[in-house]
Amino acid sequence: MPKAEARAVRHGFPWVYANELVLDRRTKALEPGSLAVLEDAGRIAMGLVAVNPLSRIAARMLDPVPGAVIDRAWFEKRIAAAQTHRALLYDAPFYRLIHAEADGLPGVVVDRFGDVAVIQPNAAWAERLLQPLVEALVEVTGVTTVLKNASGRARALEGLDETSEVLVGQAPEGPVEVPMNGATYMADLTGGQKTGLFYDQRPNQAFAAGLARGARVLDVFSHVGGFSLAALAGGAERALAVDSSAPALELARKGAEASGMAERFDTRQGDAFDTLAALGAEGESFELVVCDPPAFAPSKKALEAGLRAYERIARMAAPLVADGGYLVLCSCSHAADLAKFRAASARGIGKAGRRGPIVYEGRAGADHPVLPQLAETGYLKALVFRL
Amino acid sequence: MPKAEARAVRHGFPWVYANELVLDRRTKALEPGSLAVLEDAGRIAMGLVAVNPLSRIAARMLDPVPGAVIDRAWFEKRIAAAQTHRALLYDAPFYRLIHAEADGLPGVVVDRFGDVAVIQPNAAWAERLLQPLVEALVEVTGVTTVLKNASGRARALEGLDETSEVLVGQAPEGPVEVPMNGATYMADLTGGQKTGLFYDQRPNQAFAAGLARGARVLDVFSHVGGFSLAALAGGAERALAVDSSAPALELARKGAEASGMAERFDTRQGDAFDTLAALGAEGESFELVVCDPPAFAPSKKALEAGLRAYERIARMAAPLVADGGYLVLCSCSHAADLAKFRAASARGIGKAGRRGPIVYEGRAGADHPVLPQLAETGYLKALVFRL
Repeated sequence: MPKAEARAVRHGFPWVYANELVLDRRTKALEPGSLAVLEDAGRIAMGLVAVNPLSRIAARMLDPVPGAVIDRAWFEKRIAAAQTHRALLYDAPFYRLIHAEADGLPGVVVDRFGDVAVIQPNAAWAERLLQPLVEALVEVTGVTTVLKNASGRARALEGLDETSEVLVGQAPEGPVEVPMNGATYMADLTGGQKTGLFYDQRPNQAFAAGLARGARVLDVFSHVGGFSLAALAGGAERALAVDSSAPALELARKGAEASGMAERFDTRQGDAFDTLAALGAEGESFELVVCDPPAFAPSKKALEAGLRAYERIARMAAPLVADGGYLVLCSCSHAADLAKFRAASARGIGKAGRRGPIVYEGRAGADHPVLPQLAETGYLKALVFRL
Repeated sequence: MPKAEARAVRHGFPWVYANELVLDRRTKALEPGSLAVLEDAGRIAMGLVAVNPLSRIAARMLDPVPGAVIDRAWFEKRIAAAQTHRALLYDAPFYRLIHAEADGLPGVVVDRFGDVAVIQPNAAWAERLLQPLVEALVEVTGVTTVLKNASGRARALEGLDETSEVLVGQAPEGPVEVPMNGATYMADLTGGQKTGLFYDQRPNQAFAAGLARGARVLDVFSHVGGFSLAALAGGAERALAVDSSAPALELARKGAEASGMAERFDTRQGDAFDTLAALGAEGESFELVVCDPPAFAPSKKALEAGLRAYERIARMAAPLVADGGYLVLCSCSHAADLAKFRAASARGIGKAGRRGPIVYEGRAGADHPVLPQLAETGYLKALVFRL
């Protein structure tokens, strides 16, 4: 591979792109997910990689030791290191346990919900080595159930199927209770979006909850109530959760009940933009408004349209914020970096005739580590404006 | 003023630079800190500004209402709004109360330490209107002492002197106790650096404290023990604070005593680089190492040298971190943005033969709001690497 790219890999960049690699005939014939030794232009071994000739990411670094053996013990070491970090951070075993490259397991995501682990093997090598990986996961964590979630969009790029299944134990009957930020959430681990609950917003939800004392709260794109239940636990007077998904709102209601906060919690099913417009027409006002939409700019191509959508959300949400209240605006778009998202948000707020400083800029929680070489792509941004 | 700049001001940009402004003879003769009405190229009034013909920032927007009267009542409204925000965030009145432009008082900084407020009037207009400003401050907050700190570097740019004084009440005898992150800090409000204690690192110190359970902690550039006392309160086994200032370390020791943690706390006076080298030579190892240096890149001119200094700090600190431990690296340099600081830090860690993901990226706390138009310049960055 070329010198500059080889240097980047030596310095910790975890991937080799297909156009950077000279593949000999034998390598080209490798099955997706095969292991191979990466060599630089001088044929010096640089480490053990997982190869996928089908993917733009042709090789993922697994171990700088070229002769490393990727067996159950190898997986156990990495999972144990990841678990030590989370155990220090959280009182209870509810967190993202493995965050792919940054936890040394490229393309692999594991979320832990007490006795249940949900694994997303989003790279071909992990699918091939799923058995020792899952054995190690059970050994290190002691979970009794392991669910495979194959809905990740990355799997198609790796040539993998979409078949989710129960790998260990039995799928839980009904939603699982998840304690977080003082509330109890309900996660549907087999029928929900992604793995049923997003842990990444935890610190941002905690911050918003700290602003919620006595507030009327509006939580748009609420999913299972991430921000609204945390806000109620933080002392909000009332919270209204808005989502287009009836099952998500049902889980949010069940969470409010399990948290003993049902009488302060309302839901409204519908399109977010329509609902923001309707609430505006009704003259509603809230001390805390949260908009945590799906990725409006999932790719560079979608960036301009995505930024317009973020601006529109800000423009429609700002009028609903009481004077001196707070507006939480989130983006989980890789393509929209913090500066662009911030500018679009401020523009929308300005067009609504409001203004105010940013009091908080948040990222994904510490159970979502990032490699410094990939840190620019940190996808989650949460901004809190005081209007 | 030119159209583009006028539009920026209409959208909330708080300053007009000298080269953007056409000053008539009368305006040029204005005393620094005089009030005037800002007009656009079509002579339409845009708001009330404070003018300083001596400063590169020729005008600072005070109020979009051209006829606003800047009296005690005007100050009270802004201070009360700022206080409402902080009272929601913090249990006790120890915080930055006024953070200049973002709190509607350009160039004015007020830190609150219980019954004592320290004011930094770092713009000429605030110096001129100091009396109604301080009266409003006392009225809204109920503080019994107001100290003026005139050591800010910005004052010289505004043509202001460096004379600090007691404006209301009596200067406290000895250091003031400050409760923060579970510890008690000692702030010397008359003799210390800046206002005796930095509130801006509070959330970053809280995060680091959450990683400190059972850890041996090294706190380099400790000042009065910001990170080390928080870490001890978070359950650290021992903490070693390093600073070149003997008075700062003495305050840190007093803080450790007041917190009942003195027997777990050590100090070492000396140059940070020398001490890092010495600790390395002694084969010392810590589960948590913090380096929170003064601004190495205070200006664009100093950027390259500053980034080399950040890289050097990272290179010297990384070897002291135990395997699986954490390295907290901070920068308070405006000129070094997050991406540049992150790259310099990762480079230094790599040169030390270590690597690891970033688990946290922190900014200044929520009592340091920023205008979205100035948010790119957010000065404080805290990165936590797991090595």
